[in-house]
Parts: sequence; structure tokens; C-alpha cells
Amino acid sequence: MPDVTSERLSDFFRPKNIAMVGATDSFRMSGAAYHNLRLHGFAGQVHLVNPRTPVVHGQRTVPSLAEIDGPVDLAFFVLGGERVVELAEEAGELGIRNLVVLAGGFRETGAEGADRERRLLEVADKYGQVVLGPNTIGFVNTTDGVALYGTRCAEPVRPGPVGLVTQSGMMLSSGIKALGRQDVGFSLMVGVGNEAVISLDKVVDHLVDDPATGVIGLLVESVRDPRALRAAALRALDAGKPIVALNSARTSVTADFAASHTGAIVGDQRIMEAVFEDLGVIRVTSLEDYYATVGYLARNRPMRGRRIAFAGISGGKCELFADRAIELGFEMPSFGPRATEALKALLPPFAAVKNPLDCTGAVKTDTLIAAIDILARDENVDAVVYDVWTLLVGNPDEEQIAENGRELARALADAPVPVLPVGLTGSDDIPLVPAYFTGHGLSPEILGIEHGTFAMERSVWWTECRARPRPVGRDVEVDEAQAAALMDGSLTEARLLDALAAHGVSAVPHFVCRTVDEVRAAAETLGFPLAIKISSPDIAHKSRIGAVVLDVTDIEAAVGAFAAIERAARAAHPEARIDGALVAPMNRKGLELIVGVKRDPAWGQVLVVGFGGVWVERIGDSVIILLPTTRENIENKLRGLRGAYLFEGGHGLPGTDLTAVAGQVALIADFAMSLGPDLTSLEVNPLWVGESGIEALDALLTSAPGSLGLGSAHPS
Amino acid sequence: MPDVTSERLSDFFRPKNIAMVGATDSFRMSGAAYHNLRLHGFAGQVHLVNPRTPVVHGQRTVPSLAEIDGPVDLAFFVLGGERVVELAEEAGELGIRNLVVLAGGFRETGAEGADRERRLLEVADKYGQVVLGPNTIGFVNTTDGVALYGTRCAEPVRPGPVGLVTQSGMMLSSGIKALGRQDVGFSLMVGVGNEAVISLDKVVDHLVDDPATGVIGLLVESVRDPRALRAAALRALDAGKPIVALNSARTSVTADFAASHTGAIVGDQRIMEAVFEDLGVIRVTSLEDYYATVGYLARNRPMRGRRIAFAGISGGKCELFADRAIELGFEMPSFGPRATEALKALLPPFAAVKNPLDCTGAVKTDTLIAAIDILARDENVDAVVYDVWTLLVGNPDEEQIAENGRELARALADAPVPVLPVGLTGSDDIPLVPAYFTGHGLSPEILGIEHGTFAMERSVWWTECRARPRPVGRDVEVDEAQAAALMDGSLTEARLLDALAAHGVSAVPHFVCRTVDEVRAAAETLGFPLAIKISSPDIAHKSRIGAVVLDVTDIEAAVGAFAAIERAARAAHPEARIDGALVAPMNRKGLELIVGVKRDPAWGQVLVVGFGGVWVERIGDSVIILLPTTRENIENKLRGLRGAYLFEGGHGLPGTDLTAVAGQVALIADFAMSLGPDLTSLEVNPLWVGESGIEALDALLTSAPGSLGLGSAHPS
Repeated sequence: MPDVTSERLSDFFRPKNIAMVGATDSFRMSGAAYHNLRLHGFAGQVHLVNPRTPVVHGQRTVPSLAEIDGPVDLAFFVLGGERVVELAEEAGELGIRNLVVLAGGFRETGAEGADRERRLLEVADKYGQVVLGPNTIGFVNTTDGVALYGTRCAEPVRPGPVGLVTQSGMMLSSGIKALGRQDVGFSLMVGVGNEAVISLDKVVDHLVDDPATGVIGLLVESVRDPRALRAAALRALDAGKPIVALNSARTSVTADFAASHTGAIVGDQRIMEAVFEDLGVIRVTSLEDYYATVGYLARNRPMRGRRIAFAGISGGKCELFADRAIELGFEMPSFGPRATEALKALLPPFAAVKNPLDCTGAVKTDTLIAAIDILARDENVDAVVYDVWTLLVGNPDEEQIAENGRELARALADAPVPVLPVGLTGSDDIPLVPAYFTGHGLSPEILGIEHGTFAMERSVWWTECRARPRPVGRDVEVDEAQAAALMDGSLTEARLLDALAAHGVSAVPHFVCRTVDEVRAAAETLGFPLAIKISSPDIAHKSRIGAVVLDVTDIEAAVGAFAAIERAARAAHPEARIDGALVAPMNRKGLELIVGVKRDPAWGQVLVVGFGGVWVERIGDSVIILLPTTRENIENKLRGLRGAYLFEGGHGLPGTDLTAVAGQVALIADFAMSLGPDLTSLEVNPLWVGESGIEALDALLTSAPGSLGLGSAHPS
Repeated sequence: MPDVTSERLSDFFRPKNIAMVGATDSFRMSGAAYHNLRLHGFAGQVHLVNPRTPVVHGQRTVPSLAEIDGPVDLAFFVLGGERVVELAEEAGELGIRNLVVLAGGFRETGAEGADRERRLLEVADKYGQVVLGPNTIGFVNTTDGVALYGTRCAEPVRPGPVGLVTQSGMMLSSGIKALGRQDVGFSLMVGVGNEAVISLDKVVDHLVDDPATGVIGLLVESVRDPRALRAAALRALDAGKPIVALNSARTSVTADFAASHTGAIVGDQRIMEAVFEDLGVIRVTSLEDYYATVGYLARNRPMRGRRIAFAGISGGKCELFADRAIELGFEMPSFGPRATEALKALLPPFAAVKNPLDCTGAVKTDTLIAAIDILARDENVDAVVYDVWTLLVGNPDEEQIAENGRELARALADAPVPVLPVGLTGSDDIPLVPAYFTGHGLSPEILGIEHGTFAMERSVWWTECRARPRPVGRDVEVDEAQAAALMDGSLTEARLLDALAAHGVSAVPHFVCRTVDEVRAAAETLGFPLAIKISSPDIAHKSRIGAVVLDVTDIEAAVGAFAAIERAARAAHPEARIDGALVAPMNRKGLELIVGVKRDPAWGQVLVVGFGGVWVERIGDSVIILLPTTRENIENKLRGLRGAYLFEGGHGLPGTDLTAVAGQVALIADFAMSLGPDLTSLEVNPLWVGESGIEALDALLTSAPGSLGLGSAHPS
């Protein structure tokens, strides 16, 4: 497979000579793509390849790729899936290194299609071809007028800062319309389809380097290469290019559906959510939020802080805005003394000078503009939002509306903070189109209270993310020997605890005792109370079969327990190998955490930390972090748990040294990574956190398929 | 104050002869209201009262109310607040019983305004006048063409099933536009302003009886009369008229703001949320959801169940719809065998026949219509949703689009379930206006995936609410004697437990011991371990001052504790009255609940039940119920707690008899109600639930202002 670098894609999306293979008047998409190229003023050569029809789309055809006179930078296949592989081979032989494959009938259709896709990849590999698709609608590069795009455009796609990448073709036409309504244009739009070669992450990586792109919008249902996407997202964060991801296929129904749609493997959605949160990727679940946020970021500098002043002419709207802003995490501070004085002098006496500011319907536009100007210079605020109706008070005529815009622009010419108009909803029926604002040099409208305020808040969040330390840690080398030794089918809890301890994890002290005398000796060393469990590589669910005795408080009981668990184990598993009994001290009062590393089918190794013991059912309240990560990131995430108050002590619990806990968790994660790709899951349950320290009390490793679910209880 | 019955309001909103008092060309709202009356074809008399100008709005005026020739059913005051009271008096003397007061300058402006409002109320009381406002934009009754409304309408408000009531005038014009875009009209629109006489609940009550009204939309920031609103909402539920409430003033910032805007007292928002949930009132927090839901209910029958089939032509849209639907609580079941067979025969082989159904972009409109028709007859589904683009495949011309509508309508003529089109967002740029659907007898479009699906789901929820038992219990008579006795300033925990026990609550057995001998006797009766606390009406925070000893395990310790707590109490509170020591058994292992009844400034007596002990910090996880309620409702609510799994036992806890617990909670609530309006809060903490039964272990009552917050810990 060719190395699909950012530079390589830069060439790919900028062909000078294009061959449309299979061009025909009878296929809508062929005509649409040809029309779109012309519509966007594509300046290069377009060769139409059709062996049977001499004229297609009003242009003479050539019968085959080989008969094209001159170079071909990119072949655009508009024919059925069954002929694609052979034509890709032919293109390869001719030195054509870039392909776009519109046809479906590949991996998304089952075994036969998957085989066809595999053969296409073999060809691409052989000739070093970069392929977009199969099962794609194509792409539009507005900078170079390359609109190899299978849906007919009524007018040219407007150039602008938005790079759009999606697995679903429909989302591109939807994006053109929805962002067009906001007067927002595009640098590059790409439908990645089945992502056989050019995956979503690769286009994102390219867009980070693309000078025409300022904001990246994604529709994501699955992630092909989590590490690559993570790297690209962090590069985007560093480059100051926000990524907004509309996350679809969030439920099991749609994950199944996606598999039959683009052959995607959809991982655990909580992982996607957690990873995007870590990477500063703005994740949204509604189209309204998606377009409002992409549009906002394309047209505004991100807000620097969370303090907003609102000015309006309706008390009801003041309330609706303030409720939404505060619920999203904005502050609406009191105005500073200078602004307060100035507003009192400006407004009628019955207007209360507080934030949100209801200037009341009684005042005129010039007063409103003066009030907005005062707020924009208040040192207490990071942004001003005003009711767009402010510019329309008293049903003014067109010239007056224009003059209002000019006046506001004059007042705000050197305003130190963003000043943003808002309507009630994103489709308020008011006569101020986006061009009105840009024409006057004003910030454009945010898309209604609900979604526009969301967009503003996410822009602040993104700014905050840029300032955070990066969440990615160093890779851990796989220790093949240890992995083989631990996953040889004879692992016991005791050996696993020993291996963890050798890796630096603070494991509970323990002995494996084969005789009553050894039990006595262990008890003498460890003291009481004790836990005594069977030690066997073949018995996973020890407590269910009576092979665990807890709270052993004296030596008689210990001896009795030793005999009893062996009897129970033998009765339940006559064939099991038994090493003896694991004897360990009982944990005293403390907090119990469950620390798990699991392999997700889509995301790879993921760390999960949650509360154990009586706290285990705080479902959803766990930390999920893609590996490798840093101790610092683990610690920050633990502080963000809903149950984080438990770390402060109380309820009979000691206070917790979170830095130390995070350090232990990081060691466990490193250990899991060192075991390599055969590890399905490793779980330390509980990681006990008490007054006297931190201890791994029990551990379980699985290397067979069928891993533990997130947050599942430990079976011992 | 006159009795503002539903019948009385029916007359109020239907005047035949109107006097516009203070009508003047120089006040915009006067001209707007006059224009609106004419525009809506008001057939009655309109008298303009102005002592100084002979002609206003092109019509001759009369100098005073007294000089009007003929009856006046309603006086509409368009003049400044300062003259309203005297003119209301004049109107009263003339027998005018209905007033609308547009002017502000009343309660919302401070003490002087509040005094003016009080005087207006005195006049209304004296003459039996019903008043809308002050500080209102007026009302529009489309049935009778009465548009006494201070915002100029460009065209008549369309008649229809929606009754709209709001405290904010702006929301009426917004509603006209937003619902107008959906082709939805209004029966009655009312701005209640300061609600001096006609409060929101009274208009709701009237709309339940109004034959023209089918759906009720509210903008609610505060509730004047919670019991009346509750009664009206339950009548609406019984009558099959859904109420949709846009809940504003949800944060402390906006609650403060509301006080300065309409003088409203905003109660705890969690109560509003809980009460509306109980009453089947559809509470929304965004305008998008508000208009989508009101519009949906105005145009569709509510859905009967949660099983949806989706049909589309884009995989991406299938996923986006299914994610949203499932996350909102819909099911997307597999199709029945007959539908599956029929679809397999109909669709191309590469289309996967599963729900959501992607018919693929390759098929034509007639195939799509046939697929929708098959789904509409599948016994597994309660509704079908289809992508509105289905009717537009292949960029058809106008005639073809119309024919597609006719064909779909023919196919669905006798469809047994609703079949609803959806666009990606509520403002999809597609050429199908609402009239297209109604014109063809099709269900209208739901407003995009995000908000339209929300509206559908709320309609199912509302249907489910109608089937539930009503949550309102019987009133409890106030026991004045007991209230006086308990709130005389000498109440101790022991006396309060006794009073609860006398009311049927299972209180912990206890003794108040004055001597060591009495302590010995108590211990003999109760056994060990014991809790020993000071018993004093003057000491609330006993444990903080060392006046509580727990886990007393023998008689020596008990005698020592008896002396120690008295010393500690005397040291901390030398003047305190001390009755002796409260001796009670220690609670064994069990679940601890906190049961509180508090008086909310807006809502009155409210019951709050949450988890206590180590579970106390499950913030937000409590039951909040407006009193009086039923035992059954309490039980159902407890089952809905996030932590309800604790009732099932495990974690060292026994299983819980929730019916018995709810019975005890209901007795505590009854007891609190019997103490009447002086009770600020009553808290039983904990209500202990163990293997052996349920016991109130501690109780605290406050009758001073400044009640306990919801979920606060008990201070003993």
C-alpha cells in the first residue's frame, strides 16, 4: 500500500489531467461529475474513456486509457464495481497513480464484495496507487476547481475555510446547503466511502497542512486507524484548526447498520466520546449543532473566556439566552462600575441595569447601539451577545436598516471582544441575511439561542483544550517473552500479581501455600484477618464454587479454610491443576477502584478506571482513555469523575493521594501494553486505596476473544 | 377578587363592545391594536376614548368612558400606568367588568409599582372586574376576531388548534411566525403579563373547555398558583389536550431577572421539572423543541407506541435518524416476515432489508412509495418515518412532485399507523412546503431529525401519561392544636418522634432518661448497642458539640455517655433547656433514606426523598413530589431513582419492600401537611430500611423562615 502522506494527498486532490473512465450519458453521476468540473472552471484536461460511444457529455471520447494522448494524473471510475479491478490494473500499468472509485459493490455488500475490495487493494499496492473510495461520491477542491463529485451542483461550491470529510455522500450536499445559508464556503470536500486506502484520518492529516483550510468538519461513524486519527487531531489542535465531528452510529442498531453500509466496524461509543474529549475534537450529535458550530468557527475567532454580556429588547429573550448560556457553562457577570454608570445614564429609569440587560422595547436603535458599545468595552466580559432585533426596532425601512448596521459597525470598530448578534432560533424569519453582517464588517449571527450558544461554548472549550497538556504518552515496547509466559494457559492470580509487582505495581503481599505448615508460616508473616483462595490456572470464578474464604481471623479458621477450598475446588473442577492456596491479608477500610485495560475492536487498547466495591454500580462514571497516555492525564480524568468527591475522604474513607493512584494506574496500563496484541483484557479489581497506601488486591487476565465488558465486576 | 372561572374568561375573551381607553395616534401599540381588530374582521363596536383629540386612528373619539353610547364589555387601557387605577375605578362605576392593561410600571418596577398594582386589585375586587395584565401585550381570539394585541400584525393570525399563553409578549409574535411556517394556527393567544388577576393557570383552565383549542403552549417562568395549575393540567390530560411548556428562568441569574421583569417569584426548578413530569406536561427548554412539539401535536394524532420503521435513500440519514430515535427511547424493531418478504422482492439485491431501511439512491420514487406502503402495514411498527427526499428523487419537475404526493397518498389512504416525512434539519432547503402535505392528505413533515423526533417521542410519552394513575392525593386537614403544640419553641427530637408515631409512622423506640437509673432501665428494655443524645428543644446540632454518643455497647459506657453529653451540652449552651438524654437502639445494617417536606416559596409543600448515609451525595437523585400525593405515586417515583438498584439488596443491604417504604413516606407527608402553613420543613433523617422493618431514627422540624435546602444533610 502506498504511503498516503499529506503531500501525496495534496497532489491527489489537485490533478491537472483527469480521465473519466466509463463516462456515459446514461449514468446520472457521470454527467453530474462532468458538469461539476466545467461549472467550477476546471482548467486541466478531461478525457472521457468509453470504448462504445464516440461522444459523451457532448465531448469526443477515447476508447481506452491506453489511447489517451498525454499524461493522466487521476482516473475517475464511474463504471460498475465488477470492472474496477481490471481497469485499476490497466491504469497501474500506464503509470496512473491516483484513482477515485464511485462504484459500490465492495466490502459493504458481503464476502464477494470484500474479496473484490481485497483485489483492488492488491492492485493499488502493486502500482503504488492512492484510491479514494470505493463507494464514494467523490470530492470537490474549490481552490483548483476540481469538482469530481457525483451530485450535480446548481451553482459552484463557494470557496472558504471549511474542509469537510464524511463517510456518507449525502452529508456533503447537506453541508453545501446548510453552510451556504450561513455564507460559509469550503476548501475541500471529500467523501471517503469505504476508506480502502484514503481513510478519514489521512484526509484530516492533509487538511491540517492545507493552507486553504481553517476548520475541519467530519461525519464519523467509525474510525479505521485510531492512532493515526489521534495524531492528526493533535496536529490540528497545535495548528489552531478546530475539528467538529458529527458522531453517528452511536447505538447498537446503527452500528449493525453501518457494517452493512460501508463495512465499518464501530467501536464502543463511550471510547469515541472519551477520546474526542481528550483530543479537543468538538463532538456533536445533532446536525443543528454541527452546522452551527462549523459555521461559527469558520466565521469567528474562538472566544477567549466564558464571561458574556447580553443586551436585548425583550425580557423573555434575555431569560431564554441567559438560561442556555449558564447551563452550558458560561458566566453572566455583573457589569463593571464604569459600564454600569454609563448604562444608567443611557437607559430609561425603569430599565434594570443588570446582566442580561433588557433595554426594553421602549428605546430606539441608537440607544441600543450605544448600550452594546458600552458592554463591548466592559472589562468584566469576554464577549457581548445582542438580540438581532435590536437593529430592527420600530419596523425600519431598508435604508434605515442599512444605516443601523453602519452605525453599529462604527461604534464597534475597535471593540476589544467579539460582539455577536443572535435570533431566537436558527431560522428566525428576519430580513438580515448573513451578507448584511459581513457587508458591514460585523460579526455574523450565531444560529439561534439553542445551537448558536452551543457553538460559542464549544469554541471556548476548544481554546481551553489547546492550553492543556497533550494526553498521549510514550509507547511501551512489547515484552514477547513475558507475554508468552503469562499467556501460556497456566497463569494464576498469584503469578499475575507477581508480574505486576515486578513491573512496579504495588501488589498485595501474598503466599501460595501447599501445606498446612506453609499456611501457618504465611499467617505468622501477614497477620490476621486473611483471605484464602484456591490458586489454579484453570479456575476463574473461585468464589462462586466456594473456593474463597474471607475474613479469616485465626489460625484454626485458616487451616479449616485451606482444606475447605481445596475440597470445593476439587468437587467443582476435578481436572483442574491446583497450585495450592493464595493467602493474603484482608483489605481494611478503603476505596476500591477497578482498573481495566481492554482491547476494543475499533480503537485498540483502552484504559478504563471506575469505582469498585459498593460503588461499582455508578454506571457510566468511569474514566476511559486511549493508550498510551500519561500519568498526568489519568490523574486529571480521575478528578473529573462524578464520584470524585469520594477521593476527598469522609463516609468512613481516608483521603486519596490521586497522584499516587494515577501513578499505579499508569504502571498497570504500561504492563498491559507490554503484553502486546494478544492481550484481550487485564483487570485489577480492586485496586485498593487505603490510609496505608495503594494495593492491587486481585487481578485477572484474558487473552481469548470475548473480553470483559467495560465496568464489569470481577468474577473471583 | 372576582372568581375567574373558565366561563367568565369565555366572556372576557369574546367582547362585543370594546372601549380603547387612551387611544392615540402617537402610541405605536394603540395603532397596532386598532389595526389588528380591523384586520381580523372584528364585528363589534370599538369606542376610542380620548378627551383631547377628536379623531384617532381615523375614527371619532369620545371624551370619556361615561359618554359612550351603549354597553361596553371590555375596556382596553393603552395609557400610562399612573392613570390606570383611577380609570379602572371609573370603569367599575359604569359597570365595565373586563379590563386589559397594557401599561407597565406596576409590581415589576419596585415598591411604588407594587403599591399601584395593589390599588388596581382593590378596585377590581370592589367592582368584580377581571383584569388581564398589567404589563401585557394583550390577546388574540381568532374565533371571534378579537385581536386586542399591541404588536401590529402584517396579516391576520391564522385560526387553528393552538392556545398560547405566555408571560412574555415577545413569545406571541415569535409563535405566530414559527408555527405559521408549519401552517399551524391559533385559537387564543394571551400575554398574561404580571398576572394580577388572570394568571397563567386560569387561562389554561379556560383553554381546556375552549372547543377551538386542541393543544396548549406555554412559556412559563414562574407559577402563581401551583394547585390551580396542577388541577388545570390534570383536566387537560383528561380532556386529551396536550400542554407543552417552555420552561424559562431555570437558573439563579434568570430567576433574579424575572423578579425585576414581571415581579415573579421563581421557585426551585427541580420542582417545576418534577411536577410537570407528574402531570404529563411536556416540558421543553429550547424554542426549537417547543415549536416542533406544539406544531407536531397540532397536526398529528399522538403516536400510540414506540416502535418505528424508517425508510430512506441515504445510509447516513438512516443512521442519524436511528441514533436519535433510539437515544430518545424509541425502538426500531425488525420487520415482520410478510414485510420482509415483500421488501426483498421489491428492492435491489444489494439493499439490506433491515430497520432502518436504506432503499439506496439507486431506486425510483414508485419503488420508495411501495416500500413505505409495505412498512405502514407491518404489524411490528407503530409509525413509519421516511426521508422527505424520497418524493424528490432524480430532481423531478413540479408536476412530477405533485404526482408523487398523490401516489403516496393513494398508497397510504388506509394506512393503520402514522406515516411521517422528515428532513435532516427543521430548515432543510427543499421545495416541499407544509401545504404540499396537507394538500395531498399526507402527514406533515416532522421538523428535522433532532427536534422532530423529540416531538414524536413526547407525544408518545404524553399518551403514556394519560394512562397512568393521577398523582394527586387527598388534602389533609390542618390540626391547629397539634401544630401549635409542636411549634411552640419547646420541641425535642423525642417529642417529634412521638408525634410521628402517633400519626402512624414507625419511629424508633426510645426513652428520655433523666437519671442514671432511667438509663439503666432503658438499656435493659432496648438492649445494646445504643445511641445516646442530649434531649433539648434549644440544641439542634447535637453531634457538633459532642452531645451525641453512638455505638454504646455496655451499661458502663451508657452511664459514662449520659454524663458526658450533659457536660458537653451545658458547656456549649449554658442557657439551654435540657429534658434529659434520648436513649435509642443503634440502627443495624440497612439502607438510609432522607424524607423531607419543605415549603417552596413558589410551589408550597413539596416532598423530597433521597438516599442518606454514605449515599447522600448522589446529588440530583431524589424524588420530588408536590403535595398532596398518593402512596402509589411515591412508590412509582422511588422505583425511578437512578440508585433504585439499592432497593433490590446486595452490597450488604437487604432487599426493600418499596410499598411499605412508600407507605411510611406518605404518612410522614400527611403529618407535615397536618401542621399547616407555619411549617417550613420537616425532615426524617434517616428513615432506616432494614431487614427487620422501617424506622424513623431521627427527625427535625423547622418553623422559622430559611428552610433546609433540598437534599441537605441532617445536622444532628
